[in-house]
Amino acid sequence: MSEVYAARRTRLRERCNAVGSTSALISRPANVRYLAGAAPLGAVLLLGKTEDLLVCSGPPDDRPSEGRPDEALRVHILPGAGGDPAVAAGDLAAAQGGDSVAVEEHHLTVARHRALRSVVPRLRLTDLGGAVEQLRIIKDEEEISCLRIGAEIADQALGELLESILVGRTERHLALELERRLVDHGADGPAFPTSVATGPYSGRRAHRPTDRRVEEGDFLSVCLGATYRGYRCEIGRTFVIGTSPADWQIELYDLVFAAQRAGREALAPGAAYRDVDRAARQVLDSAGYAEALPVLTGHGVGLEIEEDPQLAPAAMGKLDACVPVTVEPGVHLPGRGGVRIDDTLVVRPEADGGPELLTITTKELLAL
Amino acid sequence: MSEVYAARRTRLRERCNAVGSTSALISRPANVRYLAGAAPLGAVLLLGKTEDLLVCSGPPDDRPSEGRPDEALRVHILPGAGGDPAVAAGDLAAAQGGDSVAVEEHHLTVARHRALRSVVPRLRLTDLGGAVEQLRIIKDEEEISCLRIGAEIADQALGELLESILVGRTERHLALELERRLVDHGADGPAFPTSVATGPYSGRRAHRPTDRRVEEGDFLSVCLGATYRGYRCEIGRTFVIGTSPADWQIELYDLVFAAQRAGREALAPGAAYRDVDRAARQVLDSAGYAEALPVLTGHGVGLEIEEDPQLAPAAMGKLDACVPVTVEPGVHLPGRGGVRIDDTLVVRPEADGGPELLTITTKELLAL
Repeated sequence: MSEVYAARRTRLRERCNAVGSTSALISRPANVRYLAGAAPLGAVLLLGKTEDLLVCSGPPDDRPSEGRPDEALRVHILPGAGGDPAVAAGDLAAAQGGDSVAVEEHHLTVARHRALRSVVPRLRLTDLGGAVEQLRIIKDEEEISCLRIGAEIADQALGELLESILVGRTERHLALELERRLVDHGADGPAFPTSVATGPYSGRRAHRPTDRRVEEGDFLSVCLGATYRGYRCEIGRTFVIGTSPADWQIELYDLVFAAQRAGREALAPGAAYRDVDRAARQVLDSAGYAEALPVLTGHGVGLEIEEDPQLAPAAMGKLDACVPVTVEPGVHLPGRGGVRIDDTLVVRPEADGGPELLTITTKELLAL
Repeated sequence: MSEVYAARRTRLRERCNAVGSTSALISRPANVRYLAGAAPLGAVLLLGKTEDLLVCSGPPDDRPSEGRPDEALRVHILPGAGGDPAVAAGDLAAAQGGDSVAVEEHHLTVARHRALRSVVPRLRLTDLGGAVEQLRIIKDEEEISCLRIGAEIADQALGELLESILVGRTERHLALELERRLVDHGADGPAFPTSVATGPYSGRRAHRPTDRRVEEGDFLSVCLGATYRGYRCEIGRTFVIGTSPADWQIELYDLVFAAQRAGREALAPGAAYRDVDRAARQVLDSAGYAEALPVLTGHGVGLEIEEDPQLAPAAMGKLDACVPVTVEPGVHLPGRGGVRIDDTLVVRPEADGGPELLTITTKELLAL
């Protein structure tokens, strides 16, 4: 694995040098983990002029789910209690003879930035921007395999829930049970707070579970994901409770299903982000749900559950092969409920069989 | 409740005016909730020259556990998808004729600060520092009552766990079960990730549960807390598994217990933070555990699980009445394990009976 991290750091260093920075200071935890193999709490990564250092305020956790620091990287542990690793890293950058450091201005606070500037005033601070986030968009097969295992775990947890009695149980309890099952099946933990939405709440994106109980005739939408070795996937499904769905439920389900399929089918290397979004969105739009539409219909996943790219009307850019994304259109009708269907897929060229579906739970409308 | 929030905002406004700022922009979520009653995701609070506004990117959640925005406060929802509420709030501050805004430089990122500056260049940006955090230190009785209920919930969850069979179960499962019980008993959720540490891991502060199973002869340390109406409390206990604790276990337990009691007994209005810390610390220190000692032996709790004050050797300041703090000394011996004992208490004058213990689970060494 060590070569993987070293190669990522080399690519980043090339980008820094191209814009005239001799060193870079990475503070956003997912970016630190991507480049260093682990992101101990508060740790920062210095890509220095002569040496790379992981600067931590205490010894790194050695559990596999937390990642292990790349062995090729020197770990610098701050002595004693206090001290900001970012400030210490600035000091170390200066000691290596660097004259400028690119920092993540979208992550570093004004106060930390000022502290850094005052400790090493002769160091020029520039903005690294989202350079690491950009590198993270295209995944290697090792990363995709972590996502694939996470998706399998989420499928299993969901499948088991569907075999149990649901009527009368609260959204909160169903969500807790799903999270327990994720861990049972080997997840590091949930990828994000599990969402269970019943009746009038169904179809709401990121609905936080309440004490409402599942009732006969409800739509039930569930959205969950597993974290596996740091990688986060997502699956969402909507079910109907009871034996005979109402006509409006069947119609709405079929519509969202058609939109989701259109989004999935639009995934291909070279497809514009906004075109994938439009493919899903226009199905809902032309059925008269323009008002009920979400801000985005999908997004990248990886070390964070919501990362680049965004599949949204104003998004700029095109998909590449090996980019994992969600496709998750939904409609929520206030007071009535709604439908969400959400898959994690990896963009693949047509020659390789087209998009690879990671979350394989059925998308038929199940009556439970 | 509305008057409470208005009074808090008035106190903050006085502090702003005293340092020459006509308005303030609060972005740290716990601070927004403290002053506005709720902190919808990404929302900021503008204390404007003529009017206060809660600026959100979407409609606030209306669940009680999320808080409800103070009705005396106008809620401004950004149109459409995008936009940073902090930048929009800057615009609104300028529209009210303000000429300077104090921002939370310890929370705002460099990138957001720059965006704010470029949208409203004629607004002078100053630093509000930790002004809201300072206001939050002393709690009113309503806040203390939320902490008290949270502590009762945590006591119940812990008590139920102790009645079940523990040997053979993993740290992760015990932690998940405790979190489920917290929710069962009415918590909004856990106050922080529940820590269950067995055998060689016992006594580690903030240990993340692993797949290690409880064994006969282990120390078992558990640290958990409930969030109730946004307020977070904390309790930690250490038990021994099996009928006959080893001598070293009894000795270590008695020592940490003595340290924790010394810390609790030092809590009084007017006591220096560092003196409370020293009271607990010197018991461990003089027994030869100087190396094994933690950075702090306690901290404030409230809308965040770790807030001011810190009870630590270098902390400056003195306790007031109605300040809730934890007292949580511990010793961890690498490879062997250790003991932590952690209570949440409210500082009260001696005339009122001295410190009020919120977490009442026994601190006898239970053999389970």
